[in-house]
Formats: sequence, structure tokens, C-alpha cells
Amino acid sequence: MSPASSIIDVAALARLGPEPDVVISSRVRLARNVSGLPFVNRATHAQRHEALRLLRKAVERSVAPGLAWLELHGAAPRDRTLLVERHLVSRHFAESDAPRALAVSPDERTSLMVNEEDHLRIQALQSGLALDSCFAAACGVDDALAGAVDWAFHPRWGYLTACPTNVGCGIRISAMLHLPALRMTREIERVQNAAKDLHLAVRGYYGEGSVTDADFFQVSNQTTLGSTEEALLAEFRDVVLPRLVAYEREARQQLLTRDRMMLEDRVHRAQATLGAARLLAHDEAMRLLSRVRLGAALGLLPVDMARVQRLMLEIQPAHLSLLRPDAGVGDDAERSVRADYVRQALS
Amino acid sequence: MSPASSIIDVAALARLGPEPDVVISSRVRLARNVSGLPFVNRATHAQRHEALRLLRKAVERSVAPGLAWLELHGAAPRDRTLLVERHLVSRHFAESDAPRALAVSPDERTSLMVNEEDHLRIQALQSGLALDSCFAAACGVDDALAGAVDWAFHPRWGYLTACPTNVGCGIRISAMLHLPALRMTREIERVQNAAKDLHLAVRGYYGEGSVTDADFFQVSNQTTLGSTEEALLAEFRDVVLPRLVAYEREARQQLLTRDRMMLEDRVHRAQATLGAARLLAHDEAMRLLSRVRLGAALGLLPVDMARVQRLMLEIQPAHLSLLRPDAGVGDDAERSVRADYVRQALS
Repeated sequence: MSPASSIIDVAALARLGPEPDVVISSRVRLARNVSGLPFVNRATHAQRHEALRLLRKAVERSVAPGLAWLELHGAAPRDRTLLVERHLVSRHFAESDAPRALAVSPDERTSLMVNEEDHLRIQALQSGLALDSCFAAACGVDDALAGAVDWAFHPRWGYLTACPTNVGCGIRISAMLHLPALRMTREIERVQNAAKDLHLAVRGYYGEGSVTDADFFQVSNQTTLGSTEEALLAEFRDVVLPRLVAYEREARQQLLTRDRMMLEDRVHRAQATLGAARLLAHDEAMRLLSRVRLGAALGLLPVDMARVQRLMLEIQPAHLSLLRPDAGVGDDAERSVRADYVRQALS
Repeated sequence: MSPASSIIDVAALARLGPEPDVVISSRVRLARNVSGLPFVNRATHAQRHEALRLLRKAVERSVAPGLAWLELHGAAPRDRTLLVERHLVSRHFAESDAPRALAVSPDERTSLMVNEEDHLRIQALQSGLALDSCFAAACGVDDALAGAVDWAFHPRWGYLTACPTNVGCGIRISAMLHLPALRMTREIERVQNAAKDLHLAVRGYYGEGSVTDADFFQVSNQTTLGSTEEALLAEFRDVVLPRLVAYEREARQQLLTRDRMMLEDRVHRAQATLGAARLLAHDEAMRLLSRVRLGAALGLLPVDMARVQRLMLEIQPAHLSLLRPDAGVGDDAERSVRADYVRQALS
């Protein structure tokens, strides 16, 4: 077993949280930089190592035990991809050449990226709509580290970060949403424009730079300056997110009322195709699983939504090669293993 | 029951004939014109009626009894479409405004179009590869009429016909072929070019003017002048058709050897989609049934090929409205009835 795969427990994030019909997961992330050291992109190799050393010491001393420490510069490519697929690290972080590490709790709810864009990014991730407990978890780590590290902080601007959009309280609040009905009714663009007006960033399944042509959208606050963490959280939790969730639910009801036949056609075809395909590319599998998830959420298909959620994790390339290490590396071999796995899982 | 639907027996042509894996049906057609009357496109309304009257008398007196006589100018549009879907009449014939009729045997193997492009077209149609018995059947009708009608015949040119390509012995020999593997391997264009060199016409499922972008091709001899019926039949039966059938079978073996996974993927997906869809357009249904037919022919799917053959007839728009008269006329209603029918038939 590889270091990354040994800490991966597929079952954890495959669980459903509150409001699972639309909200796949919630996330709160805090950005922090060590005072007296240049930002990662300005730091020398030695300074990056210094940040790594310093933060490892602080984490191991101050944060609740049980966090696994993973140095990414020493990890195998597949292991790094595995972490991207789990949404524990960004693609940028996985592909960087800096000395860098990830500390992650066994349940994956808490993780820390060291030397990503900032020296430290504290992340709390949970299934479903769980922003408050994500916020509490992230703050818990932040508080624990407060005495152990001296953060770059400006009395007027707040926490200093490599990217200006994070300056201030350095918080990013986000949710992964499943918005298939808004796509089917072609209202998604209107929603995306509205999100822009609300200073939200809308991204694809794999975050920054990933495509948004699937049914999964990561929505997050865009700026942090001039507001408190609590105010940003309250706005996102009480205004932004409920509105987006309501939009999607309305679109679903609209489809059920006006286009039920089309909707049933699509979800049943998706389920049948997943149950019959002998070759299945990742992007097609995600499109089909999205429809089956919608069918399950609306009670149109007798499928367990948690099973679908789990499959969405498992059929990603690196996860798949972990489950079926005998699979070849060629495209057809991967597509074949994926098809067999999905067929078995849904039969 | 309408006049056309009352003579339609879906079971007859749904049977499989010899070489059913590739050859769907065989057809021999003879073109004849009454001496002393102008060709249909040159004839007056009165002259067309005269041809109709004269030929009806001859048919009823001389041809084996049991032929139903159907006047198309008095038929409902759906009935005319029904006959096109059965390949008993051409689209041109169904849509013409001339006084015209179809005489057809209960088993649909023998039919006569009166006042299509020529005054009379004798057609013999059978499932599978059965050119000899089609030829015998067509000649039988021709012989029976020989004493009853005086045909336009030139001692040097042979039978005179409205279109020069039919002048001579006035025979057209054709076969409906299922060539999915040649399409998948992208060799179909090469075959179509070779067919052109052999003076063959290659048409779509509904004959002249219909699209050839599906997997079904009607192949027929292009010219008749300067050759005998027997020589044309022998060439088509012994050279042309065996070569086309062999090409398709080779392409199938090639797929089984080199692309088995892709092949299995496609036939299983097609079967699953037909078994799950809630809305099914005619052209999509034909594409999917073509793949299921291929899967059945190769033993990849446990599906009865005759059942597929029958479905291909039944799901055509006019046939469908006959089987389910309660269906609406709207597009969605038709697609829904088709999907329900297919799902039930394949479950």
C-alpha cells in the first residue's frame, strides 16, 4: 500500500450529509502565512523547507493527534492524483515542484496543505450542508496553532495572503452542488451570472481551472477583505446557498410537472447504460451518475444515493487503479475496468 | 379496420429467411406498360383510369385469386404510409395524385403496383436470401398476364418502360442488407464505390431518395438493357450478393477479433437503452435495433433475431398507430408509445 492510499477511506466521504439531494459537500478553508518568511512563490528552496519544518513541528505539537503527514514531493504520481480526486489537495498543489505536505485526519474532515499558494491552508470538509461544523473544525485547528506559529498579520488588512482575494480573514467557504435540473432547463447560465453578481466563484468538480460542463459546481465566496469570517459564513449559509438550493429544487419540480417523460427517459437511460456498458470513460460515467443521482433524489429510480455518491469517488482514474491494481494503463483497459466495476456495483 | 391495415399481417415479413444474419429480404420487380396507352406521366386522367380498369380486369381474371385490390387514391394517408413501411409501395407511389392501385397477396410475397412510374410493376418480396423464388413468383404473374394484356414491347429494345434504366427485360433485382460492421469499420464507403463500379444502385431503407446513414442498404441492379433476365439474376445472385455478404461477415469477424470490447459495449448499450427508454424516436430506434440485431446474429446477446425483425416493422410510425390507436399524433406521444412498446417487447 502506498502512503496516500493507506490513509484513504473511501467510505468516509461517500456518506450523505444534510440536504443530500443538492448539496454534495461543504468546505471551509483558512489561509495563513508564517510571519518573517516570504510567500511560497517568492521563497527560496531553503525557505520553503523552513516553512515545512516549522509547520510540521507546530502541527504535530498543537493539533489533535491522528493527523497523517504526507510529503507530496516524495509521493508517487498516482498518490498525488488520488488526493486531487478526494478533493484534499488542488491540482496546482499536486503538480507543483515545491517541497510540500498534506496533513489529514483519518476521516478526511480536516486537512492541512503546507506550501500550496500560502504556507498553510487549513481545510474542513464534510458531506452535505454542514458549513457551521466545517467552520468550527477549521477554527479549532486555527486556534490550536495560534500559540505555536506567528502568522503574517496586518492590524488594518488582517491575515496577509499570497493572493489578494484571500487577504483579510483569509476564509473561503464553499459547497459542491449538484445542479442537473438547472442544466436541463438551461437556467444554469442565468444562475452563474447571478452568482457573479453576488461575488461568488463558480467552478467545476475539480475546483479552479476544471471544466464546468458537468452537473457539479463548486460555489465559493470570492473576496474576504473588509468582512468578518462570521459575516461571510452567515451570508453564504443563510442567503447564497439556500437560494441556489431552492433554484435547483424548483427546476426539478418544473421538470417533474412539465417534462416528466423526458426526465424519466434520461434517468432510466442513464441507469441502463451504466448497467450495460463494457467500456466507460470517466467523463461519461460522471454524466450518467449525475442523472442516476437525480433519479434517486426524486424517487424515480430505486437506487441508493449513497451508493451513487461512493461510485462517483471510486470510478476516478487513480481510485480505480487502487481498487483494481491489475488494470492496465491503456485507455481501453481503464474504461473496461470502470465499466465492469460500475456494472457490478449497480446490479 | 382500414382497407390497408386489414390486409396487413405483420407476422409474414417478420419471419427470417435464408442467410438472415446479413440478408433481410430479397425482391424481384418487373416493369410493364400497356401497348397503345401513353406512359403514366404522359397519360391523361382518362387514360390512367383506362389503364387501371384494364389491368384490374386482367389481374382479377388471370392472376391466382386471393389478391386484395386497394385503390390508393381513395385510401387514408396513414394507410398509404403503412404500405410504404411494408415496402409494398414506393414513397413516390404513395404520394402521387394519379388514380392508382395495389394488388397484394395475403402473405405479401406478391404485389402489383398499377400506375406507378409504369402501368404495371410486378413485385415479389421474400424474407432472407430468396432471389430464385422471388424471380419465379414474379415470372408466374407475368406469364399469367401474358395472354390477358398486350404489353408495349419493341423487338430490338425489349419491354418499353418510362425510365430508360428499366428498358429491356424490365427487371430489377434487389436485396435489403444489414451491414452494421462495414459501417463500424468505416469500409462501407469503399463497398458503395465498388457497388457503383458494378452498376449497382445502393439506397436506404425506404428505397429511392431515402437516407443511407443507417445500417440498412437496398442494393439493386442499375440497368437492364442488353441482358437477359436470367443473366442479370445469375450475376446478382452468384457474384454481387455473395461478395457483399462476405464483406460484411469478414468485417464482423474482424470486429470480434480486434475490437470485441467495443462491439460488446455497443450491442449491450443498445439493448439496455431499448429496454429503458421512455421516449424513442423512429430513427434512433432503428439504429439501436440494428445493433441488437448484430448482437443477436453474433451470439453476443440472447435475443431472438426474428423478434428484432418484427419490431423493426412494428415501430414504424403508421404501424405503431395501428397497434396503439389510442396514441396521440404529437411527437412526444408517438415517441412514448414506441418506447413503451419496445420496452415491453424486449423485457
